[in-house]
Amino acid sequence: MSLPGDTVAILGLGLIGGSLARALRSSGFARQFIGYGHREPSLRRGVELGVIDDFSLDLDEVIERADILVICAPTLVAADLLQQILNRVGHDSDGPVITDAASVKGNLLQAARQACGGNMPPRLVLGHPIAGSERSGVDASDPELFRHHRVILTPVEGNEAAAVELVRDMWLSTGAEVVSMGVADHDAVLAATSHLPHVLAYALVDALAQSENSDEIFRCAAGGFRDFTRIASSDPVMWRDIAIANRDALLNAIDLFSEHLGQLRQAVADEDAAGMQETFARAKAARDAFSVVLAEQGRGTKT
Amino acid sequence: MSLPGDTVAILGLGLIGGSLARALRSSGFARQFIGYGHREPSLRRGVELGVIDDFSLDLDEVIERADILVICAPTLVAADLLQQILNRVGHDSDGPVITDAASVKGNLLQAARQACGGNMPPRLVLGHPIAGSERSGVDASDPELFRHHRVILTPVEGNEAAAVELVRDMWLSTGAEVVSMGVADHDAVLAATSHLPHVLAYALVDALAQSENSDEIFRCAAGGFRDFTRIASSDPVMWRDIAIANRDALLNAIDLFSEHLGQLRQAVADEDAAGMQETFARAKAARDAFSVVLAEQGRGTKT
Repeated sequence: MSLPGDTVAILGLGLIGGSLARALRSSGFARQFIGYGHREPSLRRGVELGVIDDFSLDLDEVIERADILVICAPTLVAADLLQQILNRVGHDSDGPVITDAASVKGNLLQAARQACGGNMPPRLVLGHPIAGSERSGVDASDPELFRHHRVILTPVEGNEAAAVELVRDMWLSTGAEVVSMGVADHDAVLAATSHLPHVLAYALVDALAQSENSDEIFRCAAGGFRDFTRIASSDPVMWRDIAIANRDALLNAIDLFSEHLGQLRQAVADEDAAGMQETFARAKAARDAFSVVLAEQGRGTKT
Repeated sequence: MSLPGDTVAILGLGLIGGSLARALRSSGFARQFIGYGHREPSLRRGVELGVIDDFSLDLDEVIERADILVICAPTLVAADLLQQILNRVGHDSDGPVITDAASVKGNLLQAARQACGGNMPPRLVLGHPIAGSERSGVDASDPELFRHHRVILTPVEGNEAAAVELVRDMWLSTGAEVVSMGVADHDAVLAATSHLPHVLAYALVDALAQSENSDEIFRCAAGGFRDFTRIASSDPVMWRDIAIANRDALLNAIDLFSEHLGQLRQAVADEDAAGMQETFARAKAARDAFSVVLAEQGRGTKT
């Protein structure tokens, strides 16, 4: 059995949702794109730009018309929206396929089960495109945003195979590389590679900004510091919500990091030259290998 | 009284030393450039490239011929070399002006005082150009490397004013912006903006590389992680030596950071949304202000 994908509803029309609609229109994956959200100007702008064909502020209408609902709202809003949808379609309906693009998966799975009396809705397939831009909003949307980027799907037991396939096909048609992973693995991996680095960058910049010689510190900082702290310019509200949604995995990642930092601190305190060199060299080897992987994936040569 | 700057000796002919010689030749600051070091092939290559006019493997000869000695060797080697020089010229001679380009100043000051029976040699002016490149070696040298970059001088009581002026003029002629700072301030500022971020990047990459799902972690990492961890590809031996040379300031910086990270961890654990948002927003404001400063200094628009 195959499911239709003719009409895609984008719930939350920003950079990610707008880019997805544009990519799917350009690939011919779907013919009709409806926007939904609470900010009418963004939706009007989306129609003006030809990103969506139409929009509605009425969730029931959107659910009624769409074959696929893609929740592109921020992490905590996404969980609310998912519950509102599931309260309407139930958990075993032959309604639309539901997916999302949020940064954390565990909180959405929990929200879904809560809305469905502990069951997993068979047509809910959680996903996460690892792509972004320093710009935001539908005006910044780009049909090429996902090309050569990874999209992680986290199908679970109880998922309808055809629904998983439809969501996979949707992302493949944007030029993305689609991989599958368990929900807990996804959240641990994202905590390590994204959520923890953001927390570290915020903590470092805040510590330095509050220190006595902060003027001299920022005046004398150079390129390495600029790269290292760039992510501390990210949206505080978005990252607050991600930290809340992925609390446990983030705490684990912070603790793992702190343990390693503590060991390195001890090596510095002891002037343990061999220990430091060993750690630095091991890290350099891992980072150099990561550069090679990135370059092979064509995700930019600046490694 | 003014001091002559006709013949400059570069002790350690790599990226920094080679770039300095090229810049000083191009600005007309000096006419004669001598190389010194223990790697003859590098020195020969320097002559071939026209970076230096001549070289010697004999430190006495170099001291005899040069008006300015610039130690461009790595941190710990620089301290040894400084002591060898001071053992020859003494601490109150009217010999050459001595300066350096190493990352830490406290260990050199200590080495100098040790070699001079507790006194500060009047013509030793410690300095540190905040510039570099991912490339290394004399082949990568670039006369424009220091333009619009900051050079920190750390003159101390007992320095001859004319010697400080000569070193300042030398760096100004490369197009750098020269600032003065106390030795301890320099080491604290560099610990915060450079040495600590390197330690954090090494600790993070090493922690992730050793974790169970390291394959998935590095496969799924994106642009933010790439920027954040780029400095973990730096030379392990160089950073080991910097950590040893700047031990105390680095330990202070690690502890300051750990305290802030601990507070942020507590906010995450408590799901303290307001606390997290406040910290993230404060850090973002500081980082955004830093971007503006960098852009004004013309050190690249990618902030």
